[in-house]
Amino acid sequence: MTDKKSSLSDVRERIDTIDQQIQQLISERAGWAQEVARVKGEGLSAIDYYRPEREAHVLRMVVDRNHGPLSDAEMVRLFREIMSSCLAQEDPLKVGFLGPEGTFSEQAVRKHFGHAAYGLPLGSIEEVFQEVAAGHADFGVVPVENSGQGMIQVTLDMFLTSDATICGEVELRVHQCLHSMSGKLEDIKRVYAHAQSLQQCKTWLRINLPGVECIGVSSNAEAARLARHADDAGAIAGETAGRVYGLKTVAQAIEDRADNTTRFLVIGRSLFPPSGNDRTSLLITVNDKPGALYDVLSPFAKHGLSLNRIESRPAHSGKWQYAFFIDVSGHVHDAPMQAAMQEMGSAAAQVRVLGSYPVALP
Amino acid sequence: MTDKKSSLSDVRERIDTIDQQIQQLISERAGWAQEVARVKGEGLSAIDYYRPEREAHVLRMVVDRNHGPLSDAEMVRLFREIMSSCLAQEDPLKVGFLGPEGTFSEQAVRKHFGHAAYGLPLGSIEEVFQEVAAGHADFGVVPVENSGQGMIQVTLDMFLTSDATICGEVELRVHQCLHSMSGKLEDIKRVYAHAQSLQQCKTWLRINLPGVECIGVSSNAEAARLARHADDAGAIAGETAGRVYGLKTVAQAIEDRADNTTRFLVIGRSLFPPSGNDRTSLLITVNDKPGALYDVLSPFAKHGLSLNRIESRPAHSGKWQYAFFIDVSGHVHDAPMQAAMQEMGSAAAQVRVLGSYPVALP
Repeated sequence: MTDKKSSLSDVRERIDTIDQQIQQLISERAGWAQEVARVKGEGLSAIDYYRPEREAHVLRMVVDRNHGPLSDAEMVRLFREIMSSCLAQEDPLKVGFLGPEGTFSEQAVRKHFGHAAYGLPLGSIEEVFQEVAAGHADFGVVPVENSGQGMIQVTLDMFLTSDATICGEVELRVHQCLHSMSGKLEDIKRVYAHAQSLQQCKTWLRINLPGVECIGVSSNAEAARLARHADDAGAIAGETAGRVYGLKTVAQAIEDRADNTTRFLVIGRSLFPPSGNDRTSLLITVNDKPGALYDVLSPFAKHGLSLNRIESRPAHSGKWQYAFFIDVSGHVHDAPMQAAMQEMGSAAAQVRVLGSYPVALP
Repeated sequence: MTDKKSSLSDVRERIDTIDQQIQQLISERAGWAQEVARVKGEGLSAIDYYRPEREAHVLRMVVDRNHGPLSDAEMVRLFREIMSSCLAQEDPLKVGFLGPEGTFSEQAVRKHFGHAAYGLPLGSIEEVFQEVAAGHADFGVVPVENSGQGMIQVTLDMFLTSDATICGEVELRVHQCLHSMSGKLEDIKRVYAHAQSLQQCKTWLRINLPGVECIGVSSNAEAARLARHADDAGAIAGETAGRVYGLKTVAQAIEDRADNTTRFLVIGRSLFPPSGNDRTSLLITVNDKPGALYDVLSPFAKHGLSLNRIESRPAHSGKWQYAFFIDVSGHVHDAPMQAAMQEMGSAAAQVRVLGSYPVALP
C-alpha cells in the first residue's frame, strides 16, 4: 500500500511537471497566434486570420506524428480545441448550423471549429446560406450526404441559387450495433430503435431476425434503456451506448451501408489556397445533347483527377438543361485541374467552382 | 508583402515546433495516466481512476500559473479536455444529466468532465439519481440553484430519499444584456426575449423602460434576430449573441440579480478526499422546538466554518420535523468540521453528510 501510494505520488509529480510545460507551450502558441494577427493587420476578427488550409495541414502533421497512446481522433480533437482557443482571442468565429443545439449538425460544427467558436443555431438550411451570404455568420455547416440515404437535395439546390463557397467538409461516422441483455441473437423477439436506425438496418434485420417485431422509439438511448429491462428485447444503438447501458453486443456494424457516415459541407464567402490534400466541388450545366456529360468529364480522367461524386439536378436556369454536382480530387489552383477545366471548354454550358477545400480528416 | 509573407511563415514554423512539443508532452501525459491505472490495478474503468479532488487541484495550479494571453477560463477548458482524453483511454466516464442534448445541463457536464466523457441524456432529475444509484451512470449532473429563482426543490427533495453523494459543483454564469440596432435606449418601443429572460430582467425593464411592450419568443437568439430588422425593437441576449447579430449593446448585466448563475451538483456514489478548497453539504433534521436550529448551527461559527447556504424543507421522515440543507466551507475530513459535528451532538435529530467536494472553478 505504501509502495503503491508513493509510486502514485511520483507519477502525479511527473504529470504536474508535464502540465506545467504544456501550459507554457500553449501560452507561447497563443502569443504567436496574436503575432499572426499583428502581421495581418490590427482590428481584424477571427475570420481574417482563419485559414482552413493551414489548419488541415497542422492536423495532418498531428496525425502523422501520433504514436499513441491517445487515438488519432482524440489527439486531433485536442489540437482542434487548442487552435480554436488561440483563434478566438479576437472575436470568435461565428458558425451557423441547422439547430437546435445538440444535433448532429452541431457535433459537426464542434468537430471542425472546436468549442471556442460561436455556434449560431438557425431554423433551416436555407437560413444557414442566407446568414453566411449576409455576413452575419462567418461560416455555415450544412449536411450534404448521408451514406445510407444519399444526397440531401435541399442543400444541393441552395448552391443553384446562392453564391456560397465550399471551404471544408466534415464527416461524422456512426456504427449501429445490436445489443441485448443475454447477447444471444436467438433470445430476441423484438427490436427497439429510433425509426431512422431501423430504416438504416432493415436489410440486416430482415435476414438475421426475420419476423421479429421492430418498434420505433424516441431515441436509440431510449431503446437501450428499454432492452435492459427485458430478456427478449434487442436495441439498436452505438457501441458505447450499449456498453453504457450494461448490454451485451449481439452484432456490430449492422447498418445496410457498412460505412454509415453523414457528410457536412462548410460554406463561406471565399476560396482558400491549397492545403496539399484537397477536393474541388464543381457545378456544371450541360445542354441536353448526346455525349455532353461525357465530353465534360473526360478531361478530368485524362489529367489523372478522380471523380469522387456526381449527382444530377434539373437546373433552374433553362429548359432542357441539367446541372451536375461533381466532386474531383485536387484544388482549382493545381495545374492538372486548370488544364482539365480549360479542355472542358465549350462542352459545358456553364461551370462554377463551388469550392476547393481540404479533404475531411478521419 | 514579401516581408509580411516571410515573417508569417517564420511564425508558422515556430508554431509547428511548439505543436510538436505539445503533442509529445500530451502523449507522455497519457502514458503516465495509463501508469496510474496500472498502479491502481488492471481491468478497471475510468470511474476507478477518476479523482475529483486531484482534478480540482491540477486546475487550480493551472489558474495560478496562467499569465495569459489565454483567459483562465479558456486555459482551464483546454486542460479539462486533456485530462478528459487521458482518462477516457479506458472505458469513458458515464455521466447522466437532464436531457435532451444541447441544454444548459449538458454544458455543465462538458464544463466539468470534458468532451471525452460519455453523456447520458435522461428524462428527469429523478432518473439521474436512479441511474447513478443503480450504477448505470458513474456520475450525474443536476441543477440545484438558479441565482434568480432560488433553489430547485425537486433536486433537494431527491436527497431526502436517495443515498447520492455530492462529488462536485459546477457554475454556469450568464449575463443578460439589452441590444438594439441604434444602441439607444430611447428608440426602444418593444423588447424581445425568451420568457425566462424577461422574467429575470423584469425589475430593470420596469424601471428603465416603463410601459414598453415585452414580447416572449422561442429563444434569445431569435430575439436578437428579430431586433436586427426593426429600429424600435430591443432584444435581451448574452453579450456575444448581440455582437454576433450585429446589434449595439444598450445596457449590460440587466438581470435583477447581478450574479445570474446556475449551479449544478455532481452526484456519485462515494466521498472523495479533500482537494484543499472544499465545501460540505449537510442534511440536518431537527425537532421543531425553540432554538433547535441555532443549537445546530452555532458549532460551525465557533470553529470558523462559514455557512454558504441554508434552505429548509419539510422532512418526509416524521411529523413536526424539518430538514435543513446546509453548505459549509471545508471538508468533513478536516479537524474543525469534525469538531463542529461532534459538538452539534444531540441538537440535531439526524445529520447526513451529502458530500464534501471541491469548490467550483470560475
